[in-house]
Amino acid sequence: LNKILIVGFGNVGQAFFELFHEKRKLLRLEDTAIYEISSTTYGHIKNPSQLTIDQIKAGKLSVERQDAMETIRESEADIVCEFTQVNIKDGEPASSHIRTALECGKNVITTNKGPMALHYEELTELAMKRGVQLKFKGTVMAGTPSFNLLKLLPGAEVQKIRGIFNGTTNFILSEMAKGKSFGECLALAQSMGIAEADSSMDIDGFDSALKAIIFSKVIGWSKHNLGNMEIKGIRGISITDGHCSSVLKLLVSIDKEEASVKPTLLSQGDPLASVDGLLNAVEITTDTLGKIISIGPGAGRTATAQAVMTDLMEIVRTN
Amino acid sequence: LNKILIVGFGNVGQAFFELFHEKRKLLRLEDTAIYEISSTTYGHIKNPSQLTIDQIKAGKLSVERQDAMETIRESEADIVCEFTQVNIKDGEPASSHIRTALECGKNVITTNKGPMALHYEELTELAMKRGVQLKFKGTVMAGTPSFNLLKLLPGAEVQKIRGIFNGTTNFILSEMAKGKSFGECLALAQSMGIAEADSSMDIDGFDSALKAIIFSKVIGWSKHNLGNMEIKGIRGISITDGHCSSVLKLLVSIDKEEASVKPTLLSQGDPLASVDGLLNAVEITTDTLGKIISIGPGAGRTATAQAVMTDLMEIVRTN
Repeated sequence: LNKILIVGFGNVGQAFFELFHEKRKLLRLEDTAIYEISSTTYGHIKNPSQLTIDQIKAGKLSVERQDAMETIRESEADIVCEFTQVNIKDGEPASSHIRTALECGKNVITTNKGPMALHYEELTELAMKRGVQLKFKGTVMAGTPSFNLLKLLPGAEVQKIRGIFNGTTNFILSEMAKGKSFGECLALAQSMGIAEADSSMDIDGFDSALKAIIFSKVIGWSKHNLGNMEIKGIRGISITDGHCSSVLKLLVSIDKEEASVKPTLLSQGDPLASVDGLLNAVEITTDTLGKIISIGPGAGRTATAQAVMTDLMEIVRTN
Repeated sequence: LNKILIVGFGNVGQAFFELFHEKRKLLRLEDTAIYEISSTTYGHIKNPSQLTIDQIKAGKLSVERQDAMETIRESEADIVCEFTQVNIKDGEPASSHIRTALECGKNVITTNKGPMALHYEELTELAMKRGVQLKFKGTVMAGTPSFNLLKLLPGAEVQKIRGIFNGTTNFILSEMAKGKSFGECLALAQSMGIAEADSSMDIDGFDSALKAIIFSKVIGWSKHNLGNMEIKGIRGISITDGHCSSVLKLLVSIDKEEASVKPTLLSQGDPLASVDGLLNAVEITTDTLGKIISIGPGAGRTATAQAVMTDLMEIVRTN
């Protein structure tokens, strides 16, 4: 019997909770249960499987709030899903949650970019040492195939990655291409709930940079980090008429030696040029296939829950 | 120790032979060997691993030609790679080779569309009954992720597939969009070696239809076959000026109830509209992600060899 502890019950936690119960039978997960939820907002909930999201939100069967670290240490769960909000400067509290869970011999699934981008080597080594799995598909392009495409390409040597990894900035640039100003498009994105009130993580390129770092670590390109890569966002950018035969994108570009995030003009014939609005995309250049491209949603409740489900099934199937 | 028998040593067989030896160490395949080759052109070759392609072509260490069926039955190999030329009307001789290998308890990898499209249920059931694997990634989009993307999306319910599955016709339509006639473009494709002298399989849509059938069988949509789906090719087609805001593609469209291959006008904003030249693409619509798209080469020596390598690694890793 696999037992899941969910730490953090915001959008991602709730979406995964719903998707898990919707797909449980289809995926033959009768022997797997969401065993416990630790939420700073809704309290500490044991055996939430009989409850609906609304009952959880209403505080049904929740007990006095308990420290998340304590819960992780004491829980009988063997799979910890880390979905808390994270401070990107130090990756906390998510990094500590993940570290503690791994140290306790629990498998971990996270959708938090910070811990994986900032502490990739430490956390993956710790997982290996403890003989457990650390999965993080949701950190890059939600459930849309991204770095996990490499599992379908054994032996292929990755030479280069180009990507559009941030939907908010791609939406703004797509709207600007219709003739609006940066300010108008940012305001539109905020009014639609696409951009946060504090949108600097997206606008200034850090969200894309973190994803670039995670992608490159998965490939085995270990040298890139926030301190040594070129990061340029789209704040206050303007699209001049001279661009009409090309398209401006906030492009991630990585190879073994160099990594950058910066506004880049793509020619109309470039397959990434037509990736519009909230879509994300990645182009992987390999020795055996040349360029392959994956396009799909990079965020969203169910799209992120799919990533968690993908990770969960890999853990369940190999346990 | 896994032992591979290659049946058919044309382009695909040779490309796989080369890729296998190039990637053997990287993939830790020291315990796997190409044990035997059965080729109507180059003879019957035992222990070809010490030979180069040129030595094989020169007939070094090949013995009197032996019947392929006899070789399959008598070989010590536990993995048979079926790469022969196939007659699409009855899928022979590939279907018989595959059937015999499975009956002998051998795993099978094939890149032949005919057997999989015409005898899918029979062959997959036979493999299951014998407790062996039957892999056929290379039949749809070569090594570019296609139906195997579903492995990365556990629980996702597929609602619809749209695809550009034939590079030859896509190349011709892309060239025609520049103002040339169908005849000119077909001749160009033939002079470049992209289209066969007898190009009817491609031009009349059957190649795309077979791939559509295989894709739908993998999803579990079992009703589609060559007899009940709409198949319309591009022979003699013309692109009129009225099409300038849209793009003509030979589009595969499948859902549970309907399947078709036909020339279809896509609007410029359609992500499949910008898939040009020899590229293939598939758009998969699911309940959890909406639309995701995979684009890449659909043919070619190394791209097809990658598909075989992908299949081989799945067999080796689960054995």
